[in-house]
Amino acid sequence: MAEKKLVEAITARDEDFAQWYTDVVKKAELVDYSSVKGCMILKPGGYAIWENIMHELDRRFKETGVENVAMPLFIPESLLQREKDHVEGFAPEVAWVTHGGNEKLEERLCVRPTSETLFCDLYSRIVQSHRDLPKLYNQWCSVVRWEKTTRPFLRTTEFWWQEGHTVHATEEEAEERTIQMLNLYADFCEEMLAIPVIKGKKTDKEKFAGANSTYTIESLMHDGKALQSATSHNFGDGFARAFGIQYSDKENKLQYAHQTSWGLSTRIIGAIIMVHGDDSGLVLPPRIAPVQVMVIPIAAHKEGVLEKADEIRKKLALAGLKVKLDDTDKSPGWKFSEQEMRGIPLRLEIGPKDIEAGKCVLVRRDTREKIEVSISDAAEKAAELLETIQTDMLERAKSHLESHIYEATDYESFKKTVEEKPGFVKAMWCGELECEMKIKEDTTATSRCMPFKQDAISDKCVCCGKPAKKLVYWGKAY
Amino acid sequence: MAEKKLVEAITARDEDFAQWYTDVVKKAELVDYSSVKGCMILKPGGYAIWENIMHELDRRFKETGVENVAMPLFIPESLLQREKDHVEGFAPEVAWVTHGGNEKLEERLCVRPTSETLFCDLYSRIVQSHRDLPKLYNQWCSVVRWEKTTRPFLRTTEFWWQEGHTVHATEEEAEERTIQMLNLYADFCEEMLAIPVIKGKKTDKEKFAGANSTYTIESLMHDGKALQSATSHNFGDGFARAFGIQYSDKENKLQYAHQTSWGLSTRIIGAIIMVHGDDSGLVLPPRIAPVQVMVIPIAAHKEGVLEKADEIRKKLALAGLKVKLDDTDKSPGWKFSEQEMRGIPLRLEIGPKDIEAGKCVLVRRDTREKIEVSISDAAEKAAELLETIQTDMLERAKSHLESHIYEATDYESFKKTVEEKPGFVKAMWCGELECEMKIKEDTTATSRCMPFKQDAISDKCVCCGKPAKKLVYWGKAY
Repeated sequence: MAEKKLVEAITARDEDFAQWYTDVVKKAELVDYSSVKGCMILKPGGYAIWENIMHELDRRFKETGVENVAMPLFIPESLLQREKDHVEGFAPEVAWVTHGGNEKLEERLCVRPTSETLFCDLYSRIVQSHRDLPKLYNQWCSVVRWEKTTRPFLRTTEFWWQEGHTVHATEEEAEERTIQMLNLYADFCEEMLAIPVIKGKKTDKEKFAGANSTYTIESLMHDGKALQSATSHNFGDGFARAFGIQYSDKENKLQYAHQTSWGLSTRIIGAIIMVHGDDSGLVLPPRIAPVQVMVIPIAAHKEGVLEKADEIRKKLALAGLKVKLDDTDKSPGWKFSEQEMRGIPLRLEIGPKDIEAGKCVLVRRDTREKIEVSISDAAEKAAELLETIQTDMLERAKSHLESHIYEATDYESFKKTVEEKPGFVKAMWCGELECEMKIKEDTTATSRCMPFKQDAISDKCVCCGKPAKKLVYWGKAY
Repeated sequence: MAEKKLVEAITARDEDFAQWYTDVVKKAELVDYSSVKGCMILKPGGYAIWENIMHELDRRFKETGVENVAMPLFIPESLLQREKDHVEGFAPEVAWVTHGGNEKLEERLCVRPTSETLFCDLYSRIVQSHRDLPKLYNQWCSVVRWEKTTRPFLRTTEFWWQEGHTVHATEEEAEERTIQMLNLYADFCEEMLAIPVIKGKKTDKEKFAGANSTYTIESLMHDGKALQSATSHNFGDGFARAFGIQYSDKENKLQYAHQTSWGLSTRIIGAIIMVHGDDSGLVLPPRIAPVQVMVIPIAAHKEGVLEKADEIRKKLALAGLKVKLDDTDKSPGWKFSEQEMRGIPLRLEIGPKDIEAGKCVLVRRDTREKIEVSISDAAEKAAELLETIQTDMLERAKSHLESHIYEATDYESFKKTVEEKPGFVKAMWCGELECEMKIKEDTTATSRCMPFKQDAISDKCVCCGKPAKKLVYWGKAY
């Protein structure tokens, strides 16, 4: 019963979601723990997903004129302190380098928790004229934030991300770029990851340290908790004033520049797992899967089976599919379990009887549906099925999201809904920090965002009853 | 005379090579200095070259079965100390993190100067059986080594690289992989960067801290100094013994594993500059150039010129060339200087008279040769010329290398050659550290490598006159 082992080792998803998550992350070989507290190792299975995310996002960034750069890993303490709100937000959670070689440094360096200050320092030197604008820079790197409790992908001391930093002549242009990037992230999540999102603006309490406004895309996990999936910030001219980023306009007058920043991190892999995974492990959307089809021979020791399986693999590869052949000496059942655990969207089974009949069997990871196809049609049919899986996964995630959005117009039903119904609760808000804090204290739900679609459901704040200013999505979150 | 400014700002290459290098690096907008001592910023022009290098090397690695991972940025002090030679080599030049958030850490963490210890720690946990072998992992990241004096690309506190780390069952397999990767680097340098290299083995003095043997590819800069361009190390089972990396073989006996590591860094961009650059700036090999053709309109204000120029740009892009149109309001002369400074391999000039005659002019960056072609042939001809430029650049670099390799069989002529003739000096060596040290002290030349082609030129050590064991390439180096 060796075949069963791999599957039995996973906790059932609806029994203990947190443990199920930890099991999947480990058994699907996405990450490993390291000797460094709070830091994870991205193993080949996990890094390959991140590579696909980077590749596609990078392509989309560059289409909008973004250029990549690489900035230093360290930030001198004095530079970090230049913008008041920013340093207050980040200083408590940074790692400090105090010694280089055998010598004590004159000034401490922090390991970047984010790189606004470094980009501002660069921009203050290279931006002089309106002709130098805009600058649309991005970098792919890792950043460090000292965390007390960590979970793979969701919260680790070091994580990988991209951080875009742009500088513009006008407020309007900066706001336009902020929204453009938020929409780019939302489209990417829906089209590539099959994850539908809610777009909106963060409240002042939840916005980025130093930003005028922060926009967010929020997704909903299978357990009904929200996950902030990417953010886009408009800094106005706050950082520009702190760092002296000025340009001479067409009338030769000195003006402060306007800036944005936007980021998406390896956290999104946590969302892929928690939106799509099931009791057999990971389920990857075909467009982001490092391997889309696993060919598994049945009775591989029999003459001609392995050869035929490899022939089919080649055919699928030629058709542009990401395909592998599992030709190890494990049993077919074990191979099925592994392919399912790793979330490979399609399995192609081929044995002696199939070969005789000129057929093979395709098995969908998401629905487990088995489809018998002729060997000659296998590539075409597999490509079609991958598209169908992608579409179906998005549809399922959409109906899960939609069926977990509730509304509340009075505080008692609000509290009851948060407690009893995992998901988002739409409710009106007066705009006061006090109500936001009270809701968090009473329910542990936080304001996820003020959605772009502001359809009022009442005219009173759900908490204090005073006149409402905004519709807010509330929810418990990762 | 605004057109002249850009060019005049560069020191002539043969007048002051070091200053010329610094000028090119800055004026071609490859790097900027940062507020962090010794750390550079890779600007879009520099990072785009690195992206192309990463893309092509990564493809070649993966063809040999290598998988990418991401390891933590930090190494606990106790882990760094596990292998004796290794810690001795690196501890004096690492940056130490002592505080996380507001708390002092129980154990100091060093910012990785290289990641052997982290990979070994991982391998000791995931390698158990011969079935788990080999593991062929690589990561793309930056590393930190505390440097006193720094120069962009050549020596900086932080630099970007890839580090491959493999673990094998047998000594033979590890040696085979070490050589395979060295050959891969050599082919990459010749085929993509038009840089010919000498392949060989480092002496014990020059080998990597903790390695059994280190192999290197050495290239020769225009000024006759050598540059170590990539290295590949065979660790034997030394790290495996220090970290307890053991596997049970087919007879179920416990064996120590054998390991390799190999790396190439942003330093290679320094080599591209110093092998190919000239008095007008950078000269990029077409296969690695982020932009291969710059279309520059002449009299762009005249009707139809810009439209025609853009039409040609599109044609070239459709033919698969990396092409841009310079449609800024700068003068053509200024644009020429910029294109030359940035090393773009081909320029396409098109003005009203050309359009009338159905022609345009292609100008080679490397030779400045002007080639008039009909507009309808422009894409095909440009593609051909790019191949020619690539081939010619390699040929020129090869003859420069070959004409700067000297031989010496006695110590007086050896010293004279090193002093008067920049380049490599081939000479025999007895194998003793003492002679190697003496040569370095007397001449500042170091042993670059013991070439794979061991054609003895004498039977005596050039330094002490005792029986010679090895032919060595000696030279001053970056």
